Amino acid sequence: MSDLRRDPVIGRWVIVAAERSRRPSTIFTEIVLKEPDVCPFCDGNEHLTPPEILAFRKRDSQPDRAGWWVRVVPNKFPAVDVLGNVRRAGEGMFDMMNGVGAHEVVIEAPSHDASMADMPSRQIEEVFWAYRERMIDLQRDLRFRYVLVFKNQGPQAGATLAHAHSQIIALPIVPKRVQEELNGAEEYFRYKERCVFCDVIHQEQRDRLRVVGENDLFIAFHPFASRFPFETWILPRNHESSFTDIQIGEVRSLAAILKDLLMRFRTALSDPDFNYVIHTTPFSDRTSPHFHWHIELIPRLTHSAGFEWGTGFYINPVAPEEAAQRILNAREAPADNVEEPPQRESSVG
Amino acid sequence: MSDLRRDPVIGRWVIVAAERSRRPSTIFTEIVLKEPDVCPFCDGNEHLTPPEILAFRKRDSQPDRAGWWVRVVPNKFPAVDVLGNVRRAGEGMFDMMNGVGAHEVVIEAPSHDASMADMPSRQIEEVFWAYRERMIDLQRDLRFRYVLVFKNQGPQAGATLAHAHSQIIALPIVPKRVQEELNGAEEYFRYKERCVFCDVIHQEQRDRLRVVGENDLFIAFHPFASRFPFETWILPRNHESSFTDIQIGEVRSLAAILKDLLMRFRTALSDPDFNYVIHTTPFSDRTSPHFHWHIELIPRLTHSAGFEWGTGFYINPVAPEEAAQRILNAREAPADNVEEPPQRESSVG
Repeated sequence: MSDLRRDPVIGRWVIVAAERSRRPSTIFTEIVLKEPDVCPFCDGNEHLTPPEILAFRKRDSQPDRAGWWVRVVPNKFPAVDVLGNVRRAGEGMFDMMNGVGAHEVVIEAPSHDASMADMPSRQIEEVFWAYRERMIDLQRDLRFRYVLVFKNQGPQAGATLAHAHSQIIALPIVPKRVQEELNGAEEYFRYKERCVFCDVIHQEQRDRLRVVGENDLFIAFHPFASRFPFETWILPRNHESSFTDIQIGEVRSLAAILKDLLMRFRTALSDPDFNYVIHTTPFSDRTSPHFHWHIELIPRLTHSAGFEWGTGFYINPVAPEEAAQRILNAREAPADNVEEPPQRESSVG
Repeated sequence: MSDLRRDPVIGRWVIVAAERSRRPSTIFTEIVLKEPDVCPFCDGNEHLTPPEILAFRKRDSQPDRAGWWVRVVPNKFPAVDVLGNVRRAGEGMFDMMNGVGAHEVVIEAPSHDASMADMPSRQIEEVFWAYRERMIDLQRDLRFRYVLVFKNQGPQAGATLAHAHSQIIALPIVPKRVQEELNGAEEYFRYKERCVFCDVIHQEQRDRLRVVGENDLFIAFHPFASRFPFETWILPRNHESSFTDIQIGEVRSLAAILKDLLMRFRTALSDPDFNYVIHTTPFSDRTSPHFHWHIELIPRLTHSAGFEWGTGFYINPVAPEEAAQRILNAREAPADNVEEPPQRESSVG
């Protein structure tokens, strides 16, 4: 089992993986994204993954067989181990926990070549429903405090398999940057009695310099202090603290805004690799007047300069206002003709 | 001029560079490290850089001509502008400053192919003397609060020129992670009345599981909660808060321990690209009972998974204890025969 270890100076928790959980991709060389001989995420290869935790599938289909359109399985090379209790311990002056957690993979489509930008918006909705269902289930596990949902697309973004997928990690700790956001938002709320994210949304709507996507329920913009070129935040317009409280109409609007952004990235930035992460409240504080859930989306365009890790200090070579112009000018690429998932009863409403 | 912009939620300052300060390496594609037709950092090409700020050179040589062994020049594509006063301003709810600062390049050797691992230890000493001299000079400028010294070696580490160099950035703010270390160290000191870094040194000496280099005045180890495989911290054994107070004997020990580490990295990790950053106290608090200056050195072995930026959460696939074994087992590569810099009077003492 891996360890969770705490930095004694700044208090950051790190997962230090044990040897046996190491992934096949080597550590000492560049990760090369090659097609595996047989892709374990493809339709028909269900036997190559651990048994499924959740699948949206046709009524007459069998678990761990074809017939699904979104499928969630345990990560075969988990960073944390789902068995055991959380044990905190000291090791001399150092603090650690055993690496208890859940590490799951959301396979976003049965077809090997589907990328999120090409999927019908309805398919992306299904991926978000899968996130929500898994988050709610993992919240019931009292060992965990937080569920991280993130997606790495392409080798520059850290993906080791090409087949479209996201990951879910449930942890006995709250990740550092999420905790910083919670603290910062709380401080702002104490002072202003308003949600800082709601205020940012209003400011962005007024300025109209950095907004790159809008619909009835969501807004997307490059943040004022973007760390990376074309860094994008997607927020619900209404104050909502937990992703798990998302409504049907919102899932539809979110999928539409994300698809539009990914298609514009493709045109404006030559189909870049990208990462996104969902920031939501921890289990203990699910409904909060000061925190506002959102997605942070970062196309991987540059090698980072390297010193960000040592300093927490970023130099962004493209002003977000200039980035927004490029994205808004990008004509949407025509949608590919990909099979839609079956109509979801709940999503008719 | 670029902006310094503050994230309204977590308070991180980011440099957002203006168009004219953009580097020639394109943002939209991978940075490719190719030899420029004429390297501006080479001996004899001094006219290709802005006039030198500092050079250690032979007595009879002329400024901005050959005859130097370490040379410091302004960065031709600075992230910040050295002219002007710091003006803080609001922009709606957002906070910003104009991007006042200094951005310098330390050219570490006259020869194009010298890499730090190959340099004589005496040459590395000269590089550290140059850092110190520039830091002390920049501290006199009341607009600045912090001087960042860092090195990117190789394209994976963000370097755009192959000729060995480091960078110095003076800023009107304290970088976020340095501030977090200062805060964390102060909190520990309030509780324990001891320096947390001194305590870590004692713990590492007792455990002997993660130490990868030692001499009379310095110690190097992979930290207990390493974020990256083979992440290494180098600290003076004695409590010292500011790099600028370094003594002659210490410069010698530091250069020796760094050279030894880089040579071991080369053998054990196939000559990896790497970054290092010096963490020292801000100008306002140069001598502190709780902060302990150090170097953080990170070989760039993996694409980071991508979600660290969104979460502040790291998964390290190699335990630091295992990494230390590999580094200690690595036989030192024989030193290349590179010309030594002239004897420095002050370094005889």
